[in-house]
Amino acid sequence: TGFSKPMKQTSVNPLVGDIMSTSVVTIRQSASTYEAAKKIMDCSFNHLPVVSDENVIVGIVTSWDISKAVAQKKFDFVEDIMTRNVVTATPDEAIDIAAYRLDQNLVSALPIVDNQKRVIGIITSDDISKLLARRGNL
Amino acid sequence: TGFSKPMKQTSVNPLVGDIMSTSVVTIRQSASTYEAAKKIMDCSFNHLPVVSDENVIVGIVTSWDISKAVAQKKFDFVEDIMTRNVVTATPDEAIDIAAYRLDQNLVSALPIVDNQKRVIGIITSDDISKLLARRGNL
Ligand SMILES: C[S@@+](CC[C@H](N)C(=O)[O-])C[C@H]1O[C@@H](n2cnc3c(N)ncnc32)[C@H](O)[C@@H]1O
Repeated sequence: TGFSKPMKQTSVNPLVGDIMSTSVVTIRQSASTYEAAKKIMDCSFNHLPVVSDENVIVGIVTSWDISKAVAQKKFDFVEDIMTRNVVTATPDEAIDIAAYRLDQNLVSALPIVDNQKRVIGIITSDDISKLLARRGNL
Repeated sequence: TGFSKPMKQTSVNPLVGDIMSTSVVTIRQSASTYEAAKKIMDCSFNHLPVVSDENVIVGIVTSWDISKAVAQKKFDFVEDIMTRNVVTATPDEAIDIAAYRLDQNLVSALPIVDNQKRVIGIITSDDISKLLARRGNL
């Protein structure tokens, strides 16, 4: 130790961009709760970033929000049930920073955005758990 | 290498029993979808193991299943929307085995059961991701 080992570092602690899923499904805030539920069912995904016409992130809606709408018997539009303060990450961040941010904010996924806040991917705690599954230890 | 290092091994790769949450909220299969949604909202948890009167696991219901009920406009009872083939773990298993099982089955949580299939805890990919957040690397 005492030497910097960029190669080793990268393999031990990959970047968000190496792990994130780029086939992220998004939705508009004008969509109905029913449409969001259908998207979540069809893509068997749990998190839908809510985007503007320019693909800029304005919120996130999850199956938990839809379940809450059921509990409150209040079926409105995505903009009524989405979370507006979205915790995000960028592709150049280290994966442990993303894991820490998930933990601190008690969320299960971070939309990945470019420097104009456009959605380019998503990373979930499932993806991070997978890293451990493949390595066999911490 | 070549030597077994049980102490090191344990600290590097904890057991499911060390990490699992024991304050697990369960539900009966006779409950309504609405009751399940309310429980998920109130305990801000995503996964409810479905148990018999003896606390034996008979299924699992998540906000994803409730969202699916919304998409299908079919609001029945928990037994109609729950998943019956539940993937579980036991407290004595290593955490990387649990992570592997989550990954292989594309699920985000494993109810933890004793040798009589009674629910004693739950572990989620959030819990596993947290381990990485605290260690700072893989
Ligand atoms: C396949 S996942 C897809 C959505 C998302 N990836 C997730 O894990 O929540 C959703 C389905 O998995 C089921 N499920 C969750 N945990 C499970 C477990 N431990 N064993 C079996 N099925 C489970 C739920 O009941 C739900 O129908």
